[in-house]
Amino acid sequence: MAEVAAARRSRITPEREAELYAAVLDLLREVGYDALTMDAVATRTRSSKATLYRQWGGKAELVVKALKHGKPGPADEVDTGSLRGDMHALAIREDDCEMERNSALMRGVAMAIHNNEDLRGAFRTQVVEPEIVAFRRVLQRAIDRGEVRADCPALDFLLPMLVGAFATRTLLEAQPPTQAFIQSYIDAVVLPALGVRTT
Amino acid sequence: MAEVAAARRSRITPEREAELYAAVLDLLREVGYDALTMDAVATRTRSSKATLYRQWGGKAELVVKALKHGKPGPADEVDTGSLRGDMHALAIREDDCEMERNSALMRGVAMAIHNNEDLRGAFRTQVVEPEIVAFRRVLQRAIDRGEVRADCPALDFLLPMLVGAFATRTLLEAQPPTQAFIQSYIDAVVLPALGVRTT
Repeated sequence: MAEVAAARRSRITPEREAELYAAVLDLLREVGYDALTMDAVATRTRSSKATLYRQWGGKAELVVKALKHGKPGPADEVDTGSLRGDMHALAIREDDCEMERNSALMRGVAMAIHNNEDLRGAFRTQVVEPEIVAFRRVLQRAIDRGEVRADCPALDFLLPMLVGAFATRTLLEAQPPTQAFIQSYIDAVVLPALGVRTT
Repeated sequence: MAEVAAARRSRITPEREAELYAAVLDLLREVGYDALTMDAVATRTRSSKATLYRQWGGKAELVVKALKHGKPGPADEVDTGSLRGDMHALAIREDDCEMERNSALMRGVAMAIHNNEDLRGAFRTQVVEPEIVAFRRVLQRAIDRGEVRADCPALDFLLPMLVGAFATRTLLEAQPPTQAFIQSYIDAVVLPALGVRTT
């Protein structure tokens, strides 16, 4: 049975997958997470609900995969030789237009993430946790190079530091962060907190 | 006319005002911002809608005043003689139970703040901006004492630093921050970013 499922799963092409995720994001923009149904996804993408459930398990997983799709790969793909170089390179992987688009989408699902334990769980395991793991590798390289002390207390607060940079404008000004804002924040807050001199 | 309005305004007692704000917060918890109506507030508090509008101007202002009511006064009331002392004292002005209650309320209105320009504007002018001004005074005292350099770049990022501390657990874990978490974050991130040694 597992082999049959795997064979079926493999039959979906990357193009078809991308098309499906795009349709999910369109629906998300149109109706929001709560009103989005697997029926609507099936109709919009001309697939069967059974296929959707077999492939993704459920609505929360499908939406999170769609949100993740097309985002840059893990943070530790970037390796410039210095922590400042790595963080600045990470800040510009999405241009301001992409940040605006993603930020608008995330604002739309933020409340659903908050209210829906399934979605929150899927978002944490699929998006937040892998990103933290990748970031820890970036930081470990900085520790290995002697840029950051292994016992620096700010190492435990990477997530709140970055959430602050990305969420403040979004929450209070309904505007996405810009690359310039993120890079200034990295130089003014994140690197000094990690004990890395920037000037 | 202005005098009549002022006379009428002054007729509301602090007790009555507190009662009214409590009723608004109850309604907010029960139905959320979008479904909250001035009619419901008037019924619940046995006041006339005309009085509510005269006194508060509208729903957004009334809700923001209710959210603000009972919160501690401006940050610069605290003056311990050191920046670390001030920030640690500010972090414990609300105990963990109050933080939990306020955090739950704020989670409930966060999406409305985002979607509703009136509410966002009122929240910024009534809550965020006065808090920033008060915080700048706390920081100015630290500059005057020679603890923080006047040109420290992190001075421009106080809001995102603090939003990071308060919003991360709320957004990703649907849990309020604790006093211990906020104080550790202050020592590990905020003070080092401001160039204040904590050890």
